[in-house]
Amino acid sequence: MNAGNYTLSDMRRVKTPAEVRRLIRAGAYVGHTTGVALGYLQVNLAILPESYAGEFLRFCQRNPRPCPLAGVSEVGSARIPSLGEDLDLRTDLPAYNIFRDGKHVETVTDIREHWRDDFVAFALGCSLTFEEALLADGLRYRFLDEKNGRRSAVYNTSIECVPAGRFTARMVCSMRPFRPADAIRAVQITSRFPLGHGAPVHIGLPHLIGIKDLVAEDIFKSDFRLLDDEIPVFWGCGVTPQRAIANARPPIAISHKPGNMLVTDVPSARTAIL
Amino acid sequence: MNAGNYTLSDMRRVKTPAEVRRLIRAGAYVGHTTGVALGYLQVNLAILPESYAGEFLRFCQRNPRPCPLAGVSEVGSARIPSLGEDLDLRTDLPAYNIFRDGKHVETVTDIREHWRDDFVAFALGCSLTFEEALLADGLRYRFLDEKNGRRSAVYNTSIECVPAGRFTARMVCSMRPFRPADAIRAVQITSRFPLGHGAPVHIGLPHLIGIKDLVAEDIFKSDFRLLDDEIPVFWGCGVTPQRAIANARPPIAISHKPGNMLVTDVPSARTAIL
Repeated sequence: MNAGNYTLSDMRRVKTPAEVRRLIRAGAYVGHTTGVALGYLQVNLAILPESYAGEFLRFCQRNPRPCPLAGVSEVGSARIPSLGEDLDLRTDLPAYNIFRDGKHVETVTDIREHWRDDFVAFALGCSLTFEEALLADGLRYRFLDEKNGRRSAVYNTSIECVPAGRFTARMVCSMRPFRPADAIRAVQITSRFPLGHGAPVHIGLPHLIGIKDLVAEDIFKSDFRLLDDEIPVFWGCGVTPQRAIANARPPIAISHKPGNMLVTDVPSARTAIL
Repeated sequence: MNAGNYTLSDMRRVKTPAEVRRLIRAGAYVGHTTGVALGYLQVNLAILPESYAGEFLRFCQRNPRPCPLAGVSEVGSARIPSLGEDLDLRTDLPAYNIFRDGKHVETVTDIREHWRDDFVAFALGCSLTFEEALLADGLRYRFLDEKNGRRSAVYNTSIECVPAGRFTARMVCSMRPFRPADAIRAVQITSRFPLGHGAPVHIGLPHLIGIKDLVAEDIFKSDFRLLDDEIPVFWGCGVTPQRAIANARPPIAISHKPGNMLVTDVPSARTAIL
């Protein structure tokens, strides 16, 4: 995979979402989009054949915390105009993962040659939206893992999503540690952003959602410890729909590569419900 | 003290706040007002000489969680028309406590003979407002103390209120236990009601606010235990301004008797900020 000529720092200086997409479309950048086009909604991508799309749509509708639907394409269309007039879902993300029968088989930077007339694309909100709002509020919100720049840990939990046809999953949750008064403020702020996973799904007692060891069970193996004055706060995580897709085993499915998201023209603030 | 002819059950059947006040004014009922005129704002009362009123007003402004100001009278006036056209603060509460130099000296059912031309009256919101909203939402919200009908425990905490002149206090907090997902919902609901103490001030780690033993330190000695799936959630409590008044030691001060509150004409729902 050629990472192009632009660095993440370069990309963070690009002024508009449309220009970000143009550069990515042209192959100038491959990598994380965190901090790129700050203030604009970024979304995860899930692409499925039409024969699976109806069930997946219902799965998202029934589990809005882990699967907040920001947009759905027409059958066969690689566009979601409400997220950006010019956008092309086949080229505008830095990298894509391709799955066959629920298993990851390939990572690519362009899916034009994989596109099918029966594909339906789903844009799903991500936690960058509320993380920006938390930081803008001045919340003390530490990096869990200074070395790898991770702000959250991620866990498999025992929370069963509401199933829809072949789509089933236990909820995957991200966790951020806060001092108690900040945890209360974090509930207030994230409640305003349903497209950013909305309010937390759990707070304070990890064993109740099947987590015995916060450090050992972190999927991303962040090297952290909870401080004595912190409580863990858990939000639905965008890994959940990927688990549901793996469990449904469609013959083909395509997603964003984690962290390599679609930058939209929608101001995140405009997605706030109040 | 003559408890009049009406029972609490009788009072709960009275239709309007104005009729509740008229009965109390006539001496027909003395006692708790919990559950009376459901849906209408009830308030605590604090009456101080004008020479203390400015400082107390600033104390409330600086500490809105424990001291949410719902109304302030003109100097010498026993009326706060925004809370009820006809109301008379000297007669419309079931019972009053009188304090001299910060110490409780008497409990009476009428303060007409104690009234002074330099009195200023403060109406302070109370937790009944958000408790009704929590119950209306269907939250599982158990009685901590079945025997005494108490829904909350109350604690002295180490949280220092912002002082104002002679008024200083450590915050007194009420605590209600919730399952984690309900605690998150409780933060959302109570945030809407700033006159009902607003959002919690603490969640989850009582030792951080100076509480070592939740059962032993409960001021009201509720006989409870926290269940394994519950976390303690703490709100600012209306006992706090009483502590501040005791610390300021005004020559005279008058408050409601705890639980014996003023029933106003203001629908609680109208005090919601969203």
